[in-house]
Amino acid sequence: MKKDYNKMSLVAHKKFGGKLQIASKFKLKNRDDLSIAYTPGVAAVCMEIFNKNNDVKNKLNEASIYTLKKNMIAVISDGSAVLGLGNIGASAAIPVMEGKSVLMKHFADVDAFPICLQTQDVEEIINIVKNLEPVFGGINLEDIAAPKCFEIEERLKKEMNIPVMHDDQWGAAVVTLSGLINSLKVVKKSFVNLKIVVSGVGAAGLASIRLIKSYNPDVKIYALDSKGVISLSRYDTPVEAEKLNADKKKLIDEKIIETDFDGDLAFVIQNTDVFIGLSKPNVLTIDMVNSMNHDPIIFGLANPTPEISFVDAAKSKVAVFATGRSDYPNQINNSLFFPGFWKGILARQAKGKGKDYDFKMLHAGAEAIAKMVKPKAKEILPSTLDMKVHKVVAKVIENFKA
Amino acid sequence: MKKDYNKMSLVAHKKFGGKLQIASKFKLKNRDDLSIAYTPGVAAVCMEIFNKNNDVKNKLNEASIYTLKKNMIAVISDGSAVLGLGNIGASAAIPVMEGKSVLMKHFADVDAFPICLQTQDVEEIINIVKNLEPVFGGINLEDIAAPKCFEIEERLKKEMNIPVMHDDQWGAAVVTLSGLINSLKVVKKSFVNLKIVVSGVGAAGLASIRLIKSYNPDVKIYALDSKGVISLSRYDTPVEAEKLNADKKKLIDEKIIETDFDGDLAFVIQNTDVFIGLSKPNVLTIDMVNSMNHDPIIFGLANPTPEISFVDAAKSKVAVFATGRSDYPNQINNSLFFPGFWKGILARQAKGKGKDYDFKMLHAGAEAIAKMVKPKAKEILPSTLDMKVHKVVAKVIENFKA
Repeated sequence: MKKDYNKMSLVAHKKFGGKLQIASKFKLKNRDDLSIAYTPGVAAVCMEIFNKNNDVKNKLNEASIYTLKKNMIAVISDGSAVLGLGNIGASAAIPVMEGKSVLMKHFADVDAFPICLQTQDVEEIINIVKNLEPVFGGINLEDIAAPKCFEIEERLKKEMNIPVMHDDQWGAAVVTLSGLINSLKVVKKSFVNLKIVVSGVGAAGLASIRLIKSYNPDVKIYALDSKGVISLSRYDTPVEAEKLNADKKKLIDEKIIETDFDGDLAFVIQNTDVFIGLSKPNVLTIDMVNSMNHDPIIFGLANPTPEISFVDAAKSKVAVFATGRSDYPNQINNSLFFPGFWKGILARQAKGKGKDYDFKMLHAGAEAIAKMVKPKAKEILPSTLDMKVHKVVAKVIENFKA
Repeated sequence: MKKDYNKMSLVAHKKFGGKLQIASKFKLKNRDDLSIAYTPGVAAVCMEIFNKNNDVKNKLNEASIYTLKKNMIAVISDGSAVLGLGNIGASAAIPVMEGKSVLMKHFADVDAFPICLQTQDVEEIINIVKNLEPVFGGINLEDIAAPKCFEIEERLKKEMNIPVMHDDQWGAAVVTLSGLINSLKVVKKSFVNLKIVVSGVGAAGLASIRLIKSYNPDVKIYALDSKGVISLSRYDTPVEAEKLNADKKKLIDEKIIETDFDGDLAFVIQNTDVFIGLSKPNVLTIDMVNSMNHDPIIFGLANPTPEISFVDAAKSKVAVFATGRSDYPNQINNSLFFPGFWKGILARQAKGKGKDYDFKMLHAGAEAIAKMVKPKAKEILPSTLDMKVHKVVAKVIENFKA
């Protein structure tokens, strides 16, 4: 009998009252302990931070030495795009954000606190997060709907003095790239002239497209939204074409994606090598897979129901099949990356202003994850539960040199 | 040799990197654990919260059942009035707010997270705190300068659906009242016609004045700010009198304080019974104490240096002498109250809108603390380290009926 994770999860969350609690690093056994953790001793720590932070010669933020800021990440969401559940709001998003925090603590000993914001207004979110800067060492944005997530990430990266990372974009993109690197080894293909179809250009889709293209510019990527292949020529007039949103238009302008022809998925997928689905359930058919080049690689990452079912995929000529699910082989999940990423970034004493990580560092992270297994068709990636992965990712990020 | 708490505190904070960490209530040993704490099981918890919170017949916030909100308090400061250190800003305030969180966890098993805000603007603070409501079960305001702390507390109480309490006001006031109740037993005086001088009308001073007067309207309270006794007649013209700030003026208008005469501390303290100092070091002299009625009670709560030194107090006719310090007898410190207060308030499933606590409940809290000891001149209050106190306070608050 298949386990009822829904029921087990409800019972456990109710029993414990959520997943997170606060723990003290200090003991409070006697009056001395109290005088060290709190008054009068604590005043000396406050003044040390105050004085050193006001010393222009000092380049460190002393709060990163003497306070929880040293190891604390904010997991921030407005609940506007939670898992595949949509805009369920801040309160209903909390269990997911607590989950992220639990994973960070367990896999990388990074402390993380979930902040679910009542507002879904871009300017309000930006203002609030900036004002939370004193107590956090980094900002992990999570489950914020596209396209506003792009503006929020971009602005916060520029304006904050701590690192900011939207995990739905970069966590997903890095692990997708890891999976692709190893899948290509399995089918003995290279990135050169590799034809990739990406279905879905939300946060994860756009970031994956950019990260893969920057990893090897010789790939050819066809991107599809709900209307088919993204191109300017699919619109009848230039005025119509203005409807294409700015983030998609940039993909065309910067020549990140191919725009040779328009059409639907059934048309564009013919004679390609890789399908990456970050869209919705069951858009991919057996016939479509069979119209691809030999040994196709299929990532059906819509969660929990992938773009093509396991049953159908098994009937096609697919060579490597991966999903976002934990109960089948080849799970592609950002939890392979973000705990180690934050561990490594904190160790770098990152200072924000958008200078803490770049595509090259993310490529190095993707390669490090890929190297953790000797790839086979049903094992292109290590398990999230493999504690070694997170250690390796953390070290690669910590020691990365541009 | 006296211990160097400053040095010990600096060393410990640096060694551990602050005082707080995150801990998981769930184990993550295998894939099943992951499926319960995170995807796919977590989605059922999200949808349970979403559906029930959207059901108009349901009056509970389900996040208080299934998430950290159940037991999580935000300790919020803008760093504008930290301990006796003044406006040292958000970063330098963190060690104190972490300390509050550690005390809540240790003494009452309440989880608390420190939020130190970059902004010191009233409207921004109010907007940010309101938007943090989803993840917290209560808001503990801390070390925010008067008079803006009054407006912030008042507005947040009205506008939020969770309880809000400014500890510098009500925590301090409750424990001061506890100390006063027991000191009167020691000197065998009653509240009727008791003459009390309060020096300092910041957050703690104003709240103490109001809480004591509401406890027994028969007391006579003389309040002093830096210019002397607060009254309208101390100003030469009505225009001049407009300079008196609104919170002080209300004390006069509502007849909370006595305004029979103007003058300085030396004048007004003659023939009174109690001096409560929440002002600054060394404003009280031996002669002033000796000019009071028999068996005077002196609370010198300026911290760490009280309104009169221990040496001078010992030379006067003082009967009961209390301070805010932990290294002498009779410490009056809000940590006797706030951990148990929050434990009890959370147990009441308080719903904000300013209806969660009132003066009568705070009186009950003060009496509960007072009853924990058989009062003696050098033991008017129990020790903060006495775990029983926090249990008793929590029960009294939880079970209080108006």
